[in-house]
Amino acid sequence: MSLAEQMEQLARSAREASHALALLSTAEKNDALLAMADALDAGAEPLQAANREDLKVGESLGLTKAMMDRLALDTKRIRAMAQGLREVAALPDPVGRMLNDRTRPNGLRLQKVTVPLGVIVIIYESRPNVTADAASLCFKSGNATILRGGKEALHSNQWIAQTMVEAGRRILGDRFPNSAIQVVPTPDRAAIPALLALTQYVDLCMPRGGEGLIRAVTEASKVPVIKHFKGVCHVYVHAAADLTMAVDILDNAKTQRPSTCNAAETLLVDREVAEQLLPLVAHRLGNKNVELRADPAAFALLSNLGVKYPAALVPAEEADYFNEYNDYILNIRVVEDVSHAVAHIRHFGSAHSDSIVTQDESAARRFLAEVDSAAVYWNASTRFTDGGEFGMGAEIGISTDKLHARGPMGLEELCSYKWIGWGNGQVRG
Amino acid sequence: MSLAEQMEQLARSAREASHALALLSTAEKNDALLAMADALDAGAEPLQAANREDLKVGESLGLTKAMMDRLALDTKRIRAMAQGLREVAALPDPVGRMLNDRTRPNGLRLQKVTVPLGVIVIIYESRPNVTADAASLCFKSGNATILRGGKEALHSNQWIAQTMVEAGRRILGDRFPNSAIQVVPTPDRAAIPALLALTQYVDLCMPRGGEGLIRAVTEASKVPVIKHFKGVCHVYVHAAADLTMAVDILDNAKTQRPSTCNAAETLLVDREVAEQLLPLVAHRLGNKNVELRADPAAFALLSNLGVKYPAALVPAEEADYFNEYNDYILNIRVVEDVSHAVAHIRHFGSAHSDSIVTQDESAARRFLAEVDSAAVYWNASTRFTDGGEFGMGAEIGISTDKLHARGPMGLEELCSYKWIGWGNGQVRG
Repeated sequence: MSLAEQMEQLARSAREASHALALLSTAEKNDALLAMADALDAGAEPLQAANREDLKVGESLGLTKAMMDRLALDTKRIRAMAQGLREVAALPDPVGRMLNDRTRPNGLRLQKVTVPLGVIVIIYESRPNVTADAASLCFKSGNATILRGGKEALHSNQWIAQTMVEAGRRILGDRFPNSAIQVVPTPDRAAIPALLALTQYVDLCMPRGGEGLIRAVTEASKVPVIKHFKGVCHVYVHAAADLTMAVDILDNAKTQRPSTCNAAETLLVDREVAEQLLPLVAHRLGNKNVELRADPAAFALLSNLGVKYPAALVPAEEADYFNEYNDYILNIRVVEDVSHAVAHIRHFGSAHSDSIVTQDESAARRFLAEVDSAAVYWNASTRFTDGGEFGMGAEIGISTDKLHARGPMGLEELCSYKWIGWGNGQVRG
Repeated sequence: MSLAEQMEQLARSAREASHALALLSTAEKNDALLAMADALDAGAEPLQAANREDLKVGESLGLTKAMMDRLALDTKRIRAMAQGLREVAALPDPVGRMLNDRTRPNGLRLQKVTVPLGVIVIIYESRPNVTADAASLCFKSGNATILRGGKEALHSNQWIAQTMVEAGRRILGDRFPNSAIQVVPTPDRAAIPALLALTQYVDLCMPRGGEGLIRAVTEASKVPVIKHFKGVCHVYVHAAADLTMAVDILDNAKTQRPSTCNAAETLLVDREVAEQLLPLVAHRLGNKNVELRADPAAFALLSNLGVKYPAALVPAEEADYFNEYNDYILNIRVVEDVSHAVAHIRHFGSAHSDSIVTQDESAARRFLAEVDSAAVYWNASTRFTDGGEFGMGAEIGISTDKLHARGPMGLEELCSYKWIGWGNGQVRG
């Protein structure tokens, strides 16, 4: 069987599975999820054995220590994975929600009701726990899932998917289709474009990982893709800011977890308060060893603090403003006013998360209206853009696209809807 | 300037315009729409002159009489176009609707608010009135529009777009950007892929027309596309149907306007009632000269009616079931039960609109749940799948996609949303 035929079989069986999954009741889905969680807990030993195979592959591929760490599964991580499934079981069912209910003058009642999307492909990098997370969210929302993790995680991913399917079938029998959760069984890179050409079977692809992976998937896909390429988030300190609050928010946005997409990369500060703010920033971030890349105005101010900035302080280059560092590095740019800050964010930003710090409501409202990002904040850290923090319970990804879903995506965002018309013989006049 | 550069300039200026359009108030947009309507009414003469240029082009291209008719603008059609803009002005503003409003335990208030999508490309065939319709809906929803009609309609389309822009600027001055409504200024076919490669400037493409056009656009586009390829709609008459109602619904679905995408193409009928139903169908549709393409069981029944069916009666071929006829032709297939009907619709249908006729609620509920189409009906005609009939006021198209919008698309479906976080210093712990 050619690779293309293999992918077609995989995707077609997922489509068939999706018909059955769409009809499961909430209780059936939750019972299956709880059984899957128990099966993961009970299978910690064989899963670790599978994972050891992966670690050997990882070693032979020369993975970095950090990558090997992300690949490794210990009992604590396996227990956390199982616990994650129990939490998904506890979330409300996103299928069957009534979005609209109207009766037309002719008596035709129209209901707009959520339904599963159908078949979802998830493409991600190393960490095998994503397999269980993503599959459980797709399953809870009635979708069939096709998973494609890193090639070094194939044994672990296959073990997890198969164990989830077996547990589901133990509880629901044939009502739980074998192809509900599948892992692409080959590390061949050509599998991805082959799979993502199958628009008749696949409804959505969500890539998660570095910008390179996401661009390659988006480029290759004929199937709709929801994604964010990167998170170049801004904290803009307006002239009327409470500067203590500004430093707290900036510090949190930059250093609370720099590797995340909602961490800030650039501080914009109004010229009027730059001289007051920057020493406070330098003091706070210098203690945390944050490298500063400053535009000429900020560089001049920071160079004349009286004390030498303890970490690296370098002039910013234009390209820096486009960068997602995922690291203890911050750009600083002095701007003239809200318009200037908005223009900077439109040009250099990634439409992910941007925050204004100010006590001036009209400046804030302008910023919130004019910055067209998935999430915009007034006097709060950009780090809040997250399914858990938004109260969605769990998150399958974050979108900076504008179609279908924007910002954190939870269970509701894994659904489409259909219109149901209830008549008693209505015909169109 | 190369074609690619020309398209990039067009799209970039649309993106810039979209920033300004997003900030217009409802009153500003409505005032502009009313002024545009007046300008179209007042410009009936020059518009007809531009249209005569197009008709000459159409003649030289050897267009059919039907196509020439669709291209022609008389004062009645121009008045209807202007009236359409006034109706759009009267519709509620879809921008700024609060979809969700939640306050988290840390006091951070999160609002999910509708915003315009940004830049929308509309690709369509002959009729110039689509230019005004589509541009007005995109404008009312705060979007910049790039229009690409048939090459034979270029003079009319450019006149309409320019007149709308001039009217907008008369009312709003520079707050109405020159590039709010643009027509692709060249008939060059290569303009479409060049334009639809510009994912950084264009948010959505909506093609409207025949399946060939829509497939070509979808294939060429890097930008998200929402569309329906075709409408292969079904009326399924279940064993427990009221047969008089069934004939009325089928007749309406097939013959009330056969050229529309929500017209029925195939009758599915349970074997148990086929012998009773088919003579009634033959009588009603024979009077309207509907050609029947029947499967063996239906063909046998229809051949033995006692009277000869007055229009064509031929055996159906498998390929017929995939066909959108847009004509007085109906496939008939005898099925065993709901499962069989659902399986037929899944295989041959286009996920547009499908109806079950029955008095048996459990059969109906099964059909409504298992047929995964944009609209499913119980005891009603498929012809209702339409923005006007759904109470949306106006429709920019119909989607059989599952992402973002499904079924009729009105003003609300031309919007995205953003999350606005209102804080007072919140940071993530």
